[in-house]
Amino acid sequence: DKVVRDIHKIKENSNKKGYIPRFPMIILKTKKGWTGPKKIDGKPIENSFRSHQIPFVVDEDHKSNLKVLEKWLKSYKPKEIFNEDGTVKEEVLDILPDYKLRMSNSPYTNGGILKELKVPDYKKYMLKIDKPGTKKAQDMLELGKFIKDIVKNNKDNYLIFGPDEAASNRLNYVFDVTKRKWNGAYLPGDEGLSKDGRVIDSILSEHICEGLLEGYLLTGRHGFMHSYEAFIRIIDSMASQHAKWLKVASELPWRKEISSLNYVLSSHIWQQDHNGFTHQDPGFLNHLATKKADTVRMYLPPDTNTLLSCFDHCTRSKNYINVIVASKHERLQWFNKEEAISLCSKGIDKIDFASNDKGKPDLIFAAAGDTPMLEVMAATKILREKLPSLKTRVICVVDLMKLQSDEEHPHGLSQKEYDKLFTKDKHIIFAFHGYPTLIHQLTYKRENYHLHVHGYKEEGTITTGFDMRVQNKIDRFNLVIDALKYVDIKGKKEVIKYCSDMLKKHEKYIKEEGIDLKEVEDFKWE
Amino acid sequence: DKVVRDIHKIKENSNKKGYIPRFPMIILKTKKGWTGPKKIDGKPIENSFRSHQIPFVVDEDHKSNLKVLEKWLKSYKPKEIFNEDGTVKEEVLDILPDYKLRMSNSPYTNGGILKELKVPDYKKYMLKIDKPGTKKAQDMLELGKFIKDIVKNNKDNYLIFGPDEAASNRLNYVFDVTKRKWNGAYLPGDEGLSKDGRVIDSILSEHICEGLLEGYLLTGRHGFMHSYEAFIRIIDSMASQHAKWLKVASELPWRKEISSLNYVLSSHIWQQDHNGFTHQDPGFLNHLATKKADTVRMYLPPDTNTLLSCFDHCTRSKNYINVIVASKHERLQWFNKEEAISLCSKGIDKIDFASNDKGKPDLIFAAAGDTPMLEVMAATKILREKLPSLKTRVICVVDLMKLQSDEEHPHGLSQKEYDKLFTKDKHIIFAFHGYPTLIHQLTYKRENYHLHVHGYKEEGTITTGFDMRVQNKIDRFNLVIDALKYVDIKGKKEVIKYCSDMLKKHEKYIKEEGIDLKEVEDFKWE
Repeated sequence: DKVVRDIHKIKENSNKKGYIPRFPMIILKTKKGWTGPKKIDGKPIENSFRSHQIPFVVDEDHKSNLKVLEKWLKSYKPKEIFNEDGTVKEEVLDILPDYKLRMSNSPYTNGGILKELKVPDYKKYMLKIDKPGTKKAQDMLELGKFIKDIVKNNKDNYLIFGPDEAASNRLNYVFDVTKRKWNGAYLPGDEGLSKDGRVIDSILSEHICEGLLEGYLLTGRHGFMHSYEAFIRIIDSMASQHAKWLKVASELPWRKEISSLNYVLSSHIWQQDHNGFTHQDPGFLNHLATKKADTVRMYLPPDTNTLLSCFDHCTRSKNYINVIVASKHERLQWFNKEEAISLCSKGIDKIDFASNDKGKPDLIFAAAGDTPMLEVMAATKILREKLPSLKTRVICVVDLMKLQSDEEHPHGLSQKEYDKLFTKDKHIIFAFHGYPTLIHQLTYKRENYHLHVHGYKEEGTITTGFDMRVQNKIDRFNLVIDALKYVDIKGKKEVIKYCSDMLKKHEKYIKEEGIDLKEVEDFKWE
Repeated sequence: DKVVRDIHKIKENSNKKGYIPRFPMIILKTKKGWTGPKKIDGKPIENSFRSHQIPFVVDEDHKSNLKVLEKWLKSYKPKEIFNEDGTVKEEVLDILPDYKLRMSNSPYTNGGILKELKVPDYKKYMLKIDKPGTKKAQDMLELGKFIKDIVKNNKDNYLIFGPDEAASNRLNYVFDVTKRKWNGAYLPGDEGLSKDGRVIDSILSEHICEGLLEGYLLTGRHGFMHSYEAFIRIIDSMASQHAKWLKVASELPWRKEISSLNYVLSSHIWQQDHNGFTHQDPGFLNHLATKKADTVRMYLPPDTNTLLSCFDHCTRSKNYINVIVASKHERLQWFNKEEAISLCSKGIDKIDFASNDKGKPDLIFAAAGDTPMLEVMAATKILREKLPSLKTRVICVVDLMKLQSDEEHPHGLSQKEYDKLFTKDKHIIFAFHGYPTLIHQLTYKRENYHLHVHGYKEEGTITTGFDMRVQNKIDRFNLVIDALKYVDIKGKKEVIKYCSDMLKKHEKYIKEEGIDLKEVEDFKWE
């Protein structure tokens, strides 16, 4: 009765402007394989495991089954359903809901209640950077101030999903304006929970967070998922299926746009002071790189200002899967407002303040990710100080898909643009946040094969920040040692020796002190 | 009392030869953060969410917490535990179990009950192949005969895990000697279930199957996991963690060897007659390729005899993660017993009967996987018939890691071996089972960059077998069209036209008939 009343109410209201029906949920429990032949050869088919896949065979060897098939199909009484000419009878068609009320037209299943987000100007939250590489900040903590205002402006259609990690991923400021959503029982001592909280954080299940977010986006609302970088792999196959869904939906003209599926991966591989090997896996990027280029974008902002720009861009975008890898620890800041905007709009660029090549580099450094950026800058500083005549160019990659050819990915650089940045023949020392092979596959079709990628090699467990880098050879000293293999310059032997000595000093020091060398900790660009 | 009695019994028997203790399970329920300071600033710490991460701070700004810390630590009564010199008191040490009874020495946690499998001679199950590419068989069905005998020989320490797919993956013969394991209630109509069944198949959860298998291997027993290729991605992160575990265990001298974690991925991407896009994902290979080379191996046997050899090898191996991708549908058979053994022992080889290059090829074809093999053979046949003077070499890759450099992977070919097979400068048309980028990354450091990889491009849904290949351009006609871009030979225009015409004919035919062209269906090598 309740269901019938609900349906009538929906029918009545369905043509009123702005009316969003709330559909009743119908739970129908049926027999497995309902209907099917009851039995064949004495064995039950309907309501048994035999009704799955091929319930019974009708062919030359099983002629008697033809009768079984006929009897079963006739049990649907086709004469009551179809007219003589095969069309469906009027009274049967009568049960079809109006066009507006069909399931595919439910606003909840087709972005129908999409209301654009009210996003404040992200530039307002940018840090003031006078000199690059001197001031420190926590990128995720700063981002939280921007997200806090997005939450404040969009109380009814924006949610933050994460498996019990909002605090660990440093979204602290968000809790100034909202709480963790909790619809269950409240116990004495509970704190920071609310039925209308905008942070879905009270369940440590990546699966549930991902499923809820995908459903929420589908209705036309907005949100993002943040996760420890390593544990997002838990939902690899869910992200795949969403990518497939987006591809197929894009081919259907009646499908409405929905907000992008946005991931912020923090608590990443390069900071392992208390988690270790189990918490290391940067391969979600490799995973998504296999998906359709129309769907997937990946960003590795090296500091707060670039992170703000990337997050703003992803938040406003539609129909993509975007991944941002971001740092939550105190890190040197590199780009002022104008530089960050320019770099992010290009996605990849030469860093003028770090390059001394005057258009003709001897050697190129490239960095993608916050930790690679720091080490590349420290490596060039060593070279600038010790081999000032060596002309180095430094490139920062924020939008990873820029590396791919423009024939493969809409963001890809043309061959000409790529060669202008990376040259056709100079050696490139590329420090990458994740598995080096990802850079190999993205740049496979580029002409300059003198590409030496440093990245995560599955080494290191609980240790200092710098030691993680040393163990995976992505640290400044290993970068310099590798770079000097490819250039012929007076004094390079001494620099290689200096770097090797520093690595030995580091190894001894962390064993004795358990912390990083002072000269590493105190590093500044100027 | 029961626990105490059990422990005493274990102690008594622990030195008897061959005794495997059965440890009691102790379930201890404690407060969260037990023990910790009860309250700080009036807020509960112990047994509250505040006991996680940093329960309280002791520093210059929180001096009063020093007393709290001291009080808490003293509550452990250190004077009752430690001697004056800091060593632990005799009576405390007394509760430690004997060396043999420590948790790390439980045979259940350290391969301690490892009994080698009794594996029958796999060669016995090989098909008799007189001429390559003329006879058809179902590879997985044939493999089932071998596995059936492994089950028969090893009733107490071999299990087959799969999420309700043993029948779909064509392991039918296994059910001649065992049933599905089921320890729950038996309902009328249930069939093929038994408490001592060796097939763990009654739960559609890749997570549970994977978890059970990992635990089972850890005790020193054996088994494998079979899955639809696409859905193994569900346990990406579990496979990662097992790979990490194997890496760390290999560094501990007291860790015993355990049987390899073996996957057989069937119901794969290239047969989509009733499943479609949701059931397509060959990326588990990409995923595992990021793991430590010491741990991971991947095999793509193109027919029954090579599958038998690969499965035998994986089954006997220790401490690896092995993946085999295998076909379950009727497929042409290529290699006789001797050829299969030789090919699999090398992992990669030139196929003599398919090559006419006499050591100097104009063009090279390579295939990895059953479907790529078929299409490469069909493509060379077209060229052989229509351009007989073109010298082509055909290479079959069974062991994927052969492609990597021997500096990266123990299975990798040396540069010399690689160049001998692939040459330094001839164009290679590579048909690969999965995502093309995986071949790019594996061969990145090889000198011959004239590599044109055809593979899965995320195209196609429910359609015929051949149409899946056409949509992803891995079919014989697209392979020939691509190949002829890179050679200059009289008559190539006509062959390209022939191939384009065939593609048009195919497109028209499947729309009208819903099945593949007769000349494709009936293709034979001779």
